Amino acid sequence: MRTVKAFAPATVANVSCGFDILGFAIEGMGDTVQLIENNSQELRVVSITGDGGRLPLDAAKNTCSVAIQALLDELGIRLGLDIHLEKGLPLGSGMGSSAASAVAALVAVNELLENPLEKKDLLPFAILAEKVACGAGHADNVAPSLLGGFVLIRDYHPLDVIKLPVPSELHCVLLHPHYELRTEDSRSVLRDQIPLKYSTIQSGNVGGLVSGLFLSDYGLISRSLRDVIAEPYRAVLIPGFYEVREAIKSAGSLGMGISGSGPTLFSLCQGESSIPGIISAARKVYESMGLGVDAYHSAINTRGAFVIE
Amino acid sequence: MRTVKAFAPATVANVSCGFDILGFAIEGMGDTVQLIENNSQELRVVSITGDGGRLPLDAAKNTCSVAIQALLDELGIRLGLDIHLEKGLPLGSGMGSSAASAVAALVAVNELLENPLEKKDLLPFAILAEKVACGAGHADNVAPSLLGGFVLIRDYHPLDVIKLPVPSELHCVLLHPHYELRTEDSRSVLRDQIPLKYSTIQSGNVGGLVSGLFLSDYGLISRSLRDVIAEPYRAVLIPGFYEVREAIKSAGSLGMGISGSGPTLFSLCQGESSIPGIISAARKVYESMGLGVDAYHSAINTRGAFVIE
Repeated sequence: MRTVKAFAPATVANVSCGFDILGFAIEGMGDTVQLIENNSQELRVVSITGDGGRLPLDAAKNTCSVAIQALLDELGIRLGLDIHLEKGLPLGSGMGSSAASAVAALVAVNELLENPLEKKDLLPFAILAEKVACGAGHADNVAPSLLGGFVLIRDYHPLDVIKLPVPSELHCVLLHPHYELRTEDSRSVLRDQIPLKYSTIQSGNVGGLVSGLFLSDYGLISRSLRDVIAEPYRAVLIPGFYEVREAIKSAGSLGMGISGSGPTLFSLCQGESSIPGIISAARKVYESMGLGVDAYHSAINTRGAFVIE
Repeated sequence: MRTVKAFAPATVANVSCGFDILGFAIEGMGDTVQLIENNSQELRVVSITGDGGRLPLDAAKNTCSVAIQALLDELGIRLGLDIHLEKGLPLGSGMGSSAASAVAALVAVNELLENPLEKKDLLPFAILAEKVACGAGHADNVAPSLLGGFVLIRDYHPLDVIKLPVPSELHCVLLHPHYELRTEDSRSVLRDQIPLKYSTIQSGNVGGLVSGLFLSDYGLISRSLRDVIAEPYRAVLIPGFYEVREAIKSAGSLGMGISGSGPTLFSLCQGESSIPGIISAARKVYESMGLGVDAYHSAINTRGAFVIE
């Protein structure tokens, strides 16, 4: 029986001013999916590790099997597969957990079928799986998890995804406080209507951030990492948000934002030298509030998802 | 007596999705300001040509003298100057008329003073003059008129202006219908509050347009030239807007928008070959409505304002 294993990285979506349109991928942390052909002509989610028993084994609900089924339907293929999922990133943390699972599953099944689709053409199936998992078919986690690097979702109708350059010294710190935040809550605080002037400010910063990535201008990236639309409402749900941002700024953070819909915070920085200071400054703030925090750091992952074996 | 003459180009502001934050400069068309030192220690607007007698000779109201006075005040210099302004672009057309006058005046006086300021540092004085001339201190005309090329105004507080690259084959067609449109009307139709989803779409297109300029990707530029925030309200004030856009699209227009606050329309295109077809298609639409139109085309001006002699 044929077998394939693939890995897809964790991601940061809603990158500050790039609310709903910008995401990037992280090195090292991510999900692994192994597929083993079976004789049943059915998809079976056989094992999930690292999820604390929280993810569904029901193939109609699991993001891996939903993504694979969508791809098989499109190709008109029936295939029996045992799916083994190893979660390598925390659920509900805002680091693109469901996206990484769906993307790893798609890359694996595409390899098993000897790559009938190009990598980027797997994206619509991953978005569909996100819709099942999260209720909304966003692409700002699945696109960077699949393609790597910084990714701009210019439009959804039709899908228009642009890979942006990644300055070589750009690093990321992720701060995951031991605190639960429901995505529903994070969504419900957003306003349907916003002032026109905020939209103009947001657009200016998106233009600045994109320019900063193309120019490897870390100062411009730093000045552009401002979100006037979602962050002011979401930050109040995240204990210590402004205190952490202030503390890590003087430690060399180029800017900080909410990863996805939180509670994880991301900070970008230039080079690795400021990372220990950023983590230590953040830890102090969380400790003062009696909150534990998992800190993680990496370069920006420019490879995206890949086949392991 | 010392004398200096400077030229500043016409500009397109509010470049589609780049409402209030993106502008670019045009080749050839623009204003010329000649300064001649006098013994009076006063600024005198001595002559204005090409304005049909509409611009004020009062030094407290003329955009040239206001800009020069602001610069002299900053430097703590008193100087007597006779100002001669040759308007080389139509007033109230949406091609940055007041901006070109102010910028030409500033570049001239800076040269006369042997360049105490770098070119880019003249910008705040031009913005101040815009405030006097138009009631709003926007920078998306003065910045490209001064610096040339495509310019992003990331922020005003403090001012953060980013020069974007210009793809070598990018050309512009300007269509100036014989039709008056008051800037006040064009402003009053805008909404103070907009849907959050429109802001996200606008940001995505700004990111796409900026990326397209960096990548010289004309297809991406074309797809990104969409304004969902100002254009839908302003287009109804401009006769034939949608008909012209449709007609020139099939003639090779990458996209069309309202130049500044109109009524001039701009279209971007790749290379010069499609220009005659675009102009002819637009003329037909205007003729069918009984409207005359002045058509103009040029490459994107990357030089900005300069000293003539």
